[in-house]
Amino acid sequence: MAQSDIGLIGLAVMGQNLALNIADHGFRISVYNRSPERTTEFLHGPAANHPQVVGTTEIGEFVASLQRPRKMVLMIRAGAAVDATIAQLLPHLDKGDILMDGGNSRYLDSNRRYAALREAGILFVGSGVSGGEEGARHGPSIMPGGDPRAWPLLQPILQKIAAQVDGVPCCHWVGEAGSGHYVKMVHNGIEYGDMQLIAEAYHLMRRGLNLSVEQIREIFIQWNKGVLDSYLIAITADILGVKEPDGTALLDKILDSAGQKGTGKWTGISSMELGVPLTLIGEAVYARCLSARKAERVKAEALYGKPHPRFDGDAERVVAALHDALYAAKIISYAQGYMLMRDAAEAFDWNLNYGDIALMWRGGCIIRSRFLNDIKAAYLHDPALESLLLAPFFHQALTAAEPSWRRTVELAIGLGVPVPALSSALSFFDGYRSGQLPANLIQAQRDYFGAHTYERIDHPRGSFFHSDWVGSGGHAAAGNYSV
Amino acid sequence: MAQSDIGLIGLAVMGQNLALNIADHGFRISVYNRSPERTTEFLHGPAANHPQVVGTTEIGEFVASLQRPRKMVLMIRAGAAVDATIAQLLPHLDKGDILMDGGNSRYLDSNRRYAALREAGILFVGSGVSGGEEGARHGPSIMPGGDPRAWPLLQPILQKIAAQVDGVPCCHWVGEAGSGHYVKMVHNGIEYGDMQLIAEAYHLMRRGLNLSVEQIREIFIQWNKGVLDSYLIAITADILGVKEPDGTALLDKILDSAGQKGTGKWTGISSMELGVPLTLIGEAVYARCLSARKAERVKAEALYGKPHPRFDGDAERVVAALHDALYAAKIISYAQGYMLMRDAAEAFDWNLNYGDIALMWRGGCIIRSRFLNDIKAAYLHDPALESLLLAPFFHQALTAAEPSWRRTVELAIGLGVPVPALSSALSFFDGYRSGQLPANLIQAQRDYFGAHTYERIDHPRGSFFHSDWVGSGGHAAAGNYSV
Repeated sequence: MAQSDIGLIGLAVMGQNLALNIADHGFRISVYNRSPERTTEFLHGPAANHPQVVGTTEIGEFVASLQRPRKMVLMIRAGAAVDATIAQLLPHLDKGDILMDGGNSRYLDSNRRYAALREAGILFVGSGVSGGEEGARHGPSIMPGGDPRAWPLLQPILQKIAAQVDGVPCCHWVGEAGSGHYVKMVHNGIEYGDMQLIAEAYHLMRRGLNLSVEQIREIFIQWNKGVLDSYLIAITADILGVKEPDGTALLDKILDSAGQKGTGKWTGISSMELGVPLTLIGEAVYARCLSARKAERVKAEALYGKPHPRFDGDAERVVAALHDALYAAKIISYAQGYMLMRDAAEAFDWNLNYGDIALMWRGGCIIRSRFLNDIKAAYLHDPALESLLLAPFFHQALTAAEPSWRRTVELAIGLGVPVPALSSALSFFDGYRSGQLPANLIQAQRDYFGAHTYERIDHPRGSFFHSDWVGSGGHAAAGNYSV
Repeated sequence: MAQSDIGLIGLAVMGQNLALNIADHGFRISVYNRSPERTTEFLHGPAANHPQVVGTTEIGEFVASLQRPRKMVLMIRAGAAVDATIAQLLPHLDKGDILMDGGNSRYLDSNRRYAALREAGILFVGSGVSGGEEGARHGPSIMPGGDPRAWPLLQPILQKIAAQVDGVPCCHWVGEAGSGHYVKMVHNGIEYGDMQLIAEAYHLMRRGLNLSVEQIREIFIQWNKGVLDSYLIAITADILGVKEPDGTALLDKILDSAGQKGTGKWTGISSMELGVPLTLIGEAVYARCLSARKAERVKAEALYGKPHPRFDGDAERVVAALHDALYAAKIISYAQGYMLMRDAAEAFDWNLNYGDIALMWRGGCIIRSRFLNDIKAAYLHDPALESLLLAPFFHQALTAAEPSWRRTVELAIGLGVPVPALSSALSFFDGYRSGQLPANLIQAQRDYFGAHTYERIDHPRGSFFHSDWVGSGGHAAAGNYSV
């Protein structure tokens, strides 16, 4: 009996769809699931017309059915189940076999598994797979990282089953160890930011400008024809068009209490750990947290009263400015996300190709957009680009959008419509373009109360000074320096 | 030979000063240090006139010198050294002995040590000690948490050596397990927020209004006479008064690149993990991160040009409004910090006394201020207060400050002066008082692309719905719900 090109463990919906996707592209695939009933159901159900799919009921049988070096994909719940399955597989594997975790594992776990399996001679790959059930079935964004020796063997399969944009697959090698899952985590963080920005734009139009759901829908349809063209803008227009049986907008009946699955938080936590100012995604995560405190907010509204927005200006002009504000804030969000990946790569010693990451995100995943072409172009032009904000294209785009952005945030603040992400992005931009920030005062305070020392602008970096601030009453602190 | 009331391990400056403080209050104290030379130096140096201080050179000798049940304080570097010292001590201890870690340990470590030592019959206490070297010597803020059985034995000593405000010691029992170090961590996070707010106020006056350092100093002196009266405002005035030998402000020579020791980050990370919208402290941590990217900011300024603030209004009026903005944002920051402690208490099953926490912070520590009396009063009035923002006093204060706060943020945005904390606080306030936020759109998006389901405002909480959004093209999605 012919051996399979690849094997897949875990037949929940994502695993089933990915297996069918692989089979559709002419690969023979063995599948295995902990409870064999699920395998049987799959073989007689969704996979019934896919002779390329081979069912197995024992883990040893599964491994034996694969061509060597074996290529295996885990599509199981992140966490302990992954470790347990790896432990179960290990005795059956040979050196050089490839184990790819395609679940939503935390990058720290992937770092750990990469190191442990490397010791055992197994080539571990942790891969983000984005696009949900539909993506898995018809073309996801795939972000594999881990042991680089695995890539030439996985590439022919992964790049075929991935989403394709302009003939380019949305799957490229990310980098070492847990970097694939890290990049997927940042993707999800950026998704949080994009969604929050859209929500703020909607909120400002609805509560600030008093536009109707139908008017706002038309605006999103228009926006989707320009630089904001993206999956999330498109589905927002769709959502605004969906009606209840009585003809009112379904959106108005949905509870404004947002959930999360954790990857946004993880991105925020990593940014704190690495010391990267990821303000927009941070505010987006916190905005969901605040939304979840619905009962408390209702109490607060009763106590404080609603803000009473009285907008009597030119709504069309505001909407045009809001478009620019959304675009500018989106640039900030992606620039911060790339800043985080850059610092993570340095901290974890990964070699990341930032342009390819943009290519991977152009299709299959939630943040897919036209915008990512411009990011790819920026890194193509300068692969060592320090920051997207320093790239000529984005410099021009931000400079053009800035006045509208500033006016929009001022307006929202005046109207009492919360725009935490739009305004936090603007604060960041104003800070980023400031050669001089007031952190000198913070350093003085830290030296005052904790003798933490400070550096001076008239001395080279790395020379540290301490002053005896207390009771100096305006006198010079000369002589108190120590390097 | 008489046995000691208490023992202290670790004779770095904090440990030495705390030992002298304890001895000054009439307690006999044994001290021990890993390298005995340090002990000898201490006994012949700072402790020379303190016969109450007893030096020991062996850990067994140290333990044997203490009255039972023994009370021991660790003042050593947080991390592995604490575990190593505990392991070294354990064989010499008896059930019921008390081990207090007074270092800057992470609360997660204290949770772990509490549980492990409880097994061994040892009463572990993790205590934040704030106030730096001066505080340790003359009266710190002490925040002990852990095994409640230890409190009656520690109380007579700790409350005597702590800072006193209006005759009340800045030391109360915090709660179970690692809660003492948790509360200290939140204290430090709030400290980050306070410092950032002051830095923004300074920056707006200096760069936005073009006031001189001397003018700004006078303003801080005035502010320190009112509701903003606090240690950090006072030292800011001091700092603004310190001059270089040539008569210019020392502050202007300090590099604007702020460092951190990690507790601000930890607070941000904990807020992400617990899902608490700690936006102000988050922005404060990120502002330090951005300040540290000095070279990148200088490049960005060269590319984008400085914002050109041209303020031609009434500076005095703006300063008055800024005062109110600072006060309002500070209320938000503390409300968020208390929100975090409340949710942490629930997550970790701690019983925290929020009013006592305010009392502890009134003296000895960096965030000491008049303001904390108002927090204490709010919890005295309603110990189960859900949020400081729902307390009558703070409701009135915020309502009064709101127009000035809004004007100030609008002005700063117009001038291009970054005020991330002031504006993030206002966004939070506007969101908090909104019974309706746009998270309904976020939930619709999540249901659209990931079938995450949503709740409805016309159904009880806990009923989850899913719609087939794709291609519904304006038609009703009725019939697609599943509970």
